[in-house]
Amino acid sequence: MHIFYLPEAAEGIVKLSEEESKHAIRVLRLNAGDPVVVTNGKGYFFDASLVVAHPKQALLSLQQPKPGPDHRPFRLHLAVAATKNADRMEWFVEKATEIGIDEISFILTAHSERKHVNAERMEKIAVSAMKQSLKSRLPIINPQKTFAEFLQNQFQGQAFIAWIDDNVKDLLSTSYQSGMDCTILIGPEGDFAQEEVQAALNAGFRPVSLGNSRLRTETAAMVSVHTIHLINQISR
Amino acid sequence: MHIFYLPEAAEGIVKLSEEESKHAIRVLRLNAGDPVVVTNGKGYFFDASLVVAHPKQALLSLQQPKPGPDHRPFRLHLAVAATKNADRMEWFVEKATEIGIDEISFILTAHSERKHVNAERMEKIAVSAMKQSLKSRLPIINPQKTFAEFLQNQFQGQAFIAWIDDNVKDLLSTSYQSGMDCTILIGPEGDFAQEEVQAALNAGFRPVSLGNSRLRTETAAMVSVHTIHLINQISR
Repeated sequence: MHIFYLPEAAEGIVKLSEEESKHAIRVLRLNAGDPVVVTNGKGYFFDASLVVAHPKQALLSLQQPKPGPDHRPFRLHLAVAATKNADRMEWFVEKATEIGIDEISFILTAHSERKHVNAERMEKIAVSAMKQSLKSRLPIINPQKTFAEFLQNQFQGQAFIAWIDDNVKDLLSTSYQSGMDCTILIGPEGDFAQEEVQAALNAGFRPVSLGNSRLRTETAAMVSVHTIHLINQISR
Repeated sequence: MHIFYLPEAAEGIVKLSEEESKHAIRVLRLNAGDPVVVTNGKGYFFDASLVVAHPKQALLSLQQPKPGPDHRPFRLHLAVAATKNADRMEWFVEKATEIGIDEISFILTAHSERKHVNAERMEKIAVSAMKQSLKSRLPIINPQKTFAEFLQNQFQGQAFIAWIDDNVKDLLSTSYQSGMDCTILIGPEGDFAQEEVQAALNAGFRPVSLGNSRLRTETAAMVSVHTIHLINQISR
């Protein structure tokens, strides 16, 4: 069953974009009457069927929205310094979307080796991962900001900075309270600068360790996402 | 500080291979007297120094072995059906090595789309990840076997099969007992065949779920590895 992503989906008749129409008719070879599924990326699926199989402006008929199976009682926001190698960030976006994440922010830090992040490409990867893993939620992907700009946001729930330092003994796994919203900061290959750590502490972030393995940036980010899910899973 | 991997390392003078000698002298431009670190991939580091800077047969002087920081009170063995896309398996090997794993087996299953796995290349990736993440342990990587052959092994500790089925309600996270050795089976994109599941159950494997996200094969494998670490971490 093919899944279409339509952010503005609503019950009734909706038109596919020219690109999606072409894909549906020319690539998937769907015919009028064929059943499909639509997600709005905001937690809802719609059973639907193709009503007009036009290769430039196909029409779908959507039934009423149904909540997706991936509802969760917490909101997870991860902010990460982009790795030098773009593939590693794309990989993280795919895996985080599969496991489940609400918001991803890219932060430009003192030791960042990558200055530019293609947020549009990251969103495409997230859309593809959402469809592949049958999720009804698409993470918000924010364009890169400097760390100082990022810290000016308001953060709901718990806020952690994963920081590699011998004095940081608290673990994310034992500091996070299940059911809480959560924001986690992950630094670049050379870690956060001392002043950045101080700024994060001043903004209310609590330093945590991910354990005694030295992890690459994208691995640390992915492990953080999975830790929050697992703590919620086992405390149910 | 550069890390060399020498499986047969022992206190005293050891010779680097021609390839490693060339790398040390021509690429890293090490000189006699320069300090280096050696791991034997079996849990030990050796402080060492270059004593003969020969580009074909360099010699190192190794001090006595020191246990690595990545000792763990459990042994983790993961058996996975290789994905169609080889990159996704290489990625898994890298991430599992970073997080920590003792043995990886590739299994040829009824629904496997990839018939061949280059175990030598996988080992190179594991060696590189071990060095990068400053680990002292290299996972054993077994060449691909059929699932039936694999099940003839003896398995120590707990044995799980991650299987996507509505009747499987037990979670890996709550079924695994911290401190126990553990073997986990992860199926291919099309999951295990019914007869394969039955054979695994007959061999003492217990069916578990990884949660309600539909995960790609390599993501399921990586999430399983991290789950075992996290359960051990929080129950310490």
